[in-house]
Amino acid sequence: MRNPESALCPKFHRAVELIGRRWTGALLHVLMAGPSRYSDLRDAVPEISDRMLTERLKELEGEGIVLRIVSPDTPVKVAYHLTDKGRALHEPLRAIGAWADEWVPSS
Amino acid sequence: MRNPESALCPKFHRAVELIGRRWTGALLHVLMAGPSRYSDLRDAVPEISDRMLTERLKELEGEGIVLRIVSPDTPVKVAYHLTDKGRALHEPLRAIGAWADEWVPSS
Repeated sequence: MRNPESALCPKFHRAVELIGRRWTGALLHVLMAGPSRYSDLRDAVPEISDRMLTERLKELEGEGIVLRIVSPDTPVKVAYHLTDKGRALHEPLRAIGAWADEWVPSS
Repeated sequence: MRNPESALCPKFHRAVELIGRRWTGALLHVLMAGPSRYSDLRDAVPEISDRMLTERLKELEGEGIVLRIVSPDTPVKVAYHLTDKGRALHEPLRAIGAWADEWVPSS
């Protein structure tokens, strides 16, 4: 019998560390509001470097959480969308935000 | 007006990256079941090294999530307990587990 929250359940382990990767939570939060262009993400999370933003987006694409959509305009437009799997992260992120709001001291 | 989930809210950012640190999710899951001795934690998460287990526990103590209680027996017994702040992580971890169970493929 597998417990989805088991300390040893590789799914849980992978999920918790994926969400916790540097800036991933912040990027997912921005994407929850709707499709975003690269420059929107960079503006919303000004502390992130270009290299790390590109890396995080590739990681999220690889996980099937983000879809990179290129529209055939001139000039070409690229937007990042959440997939259903990505949108389903709304509840975990909401729960973390509620916990932080109650328990993390303002710095 | 502060949004607890804002990409730029330092509380949210700190919370999501704290939970996502290597092995922290797994350790919190074990501690949710009740006070644990060092050896219980090491046995429950066999992949973690002693050095990293010690480091993670110190971090969680520093954050006020875990309390290290030394009982005055002979030999001395040390147990790690969750504080109220730590127990309040039950809901975020449950939500992450539910997401993982639905969306992360079995490997």
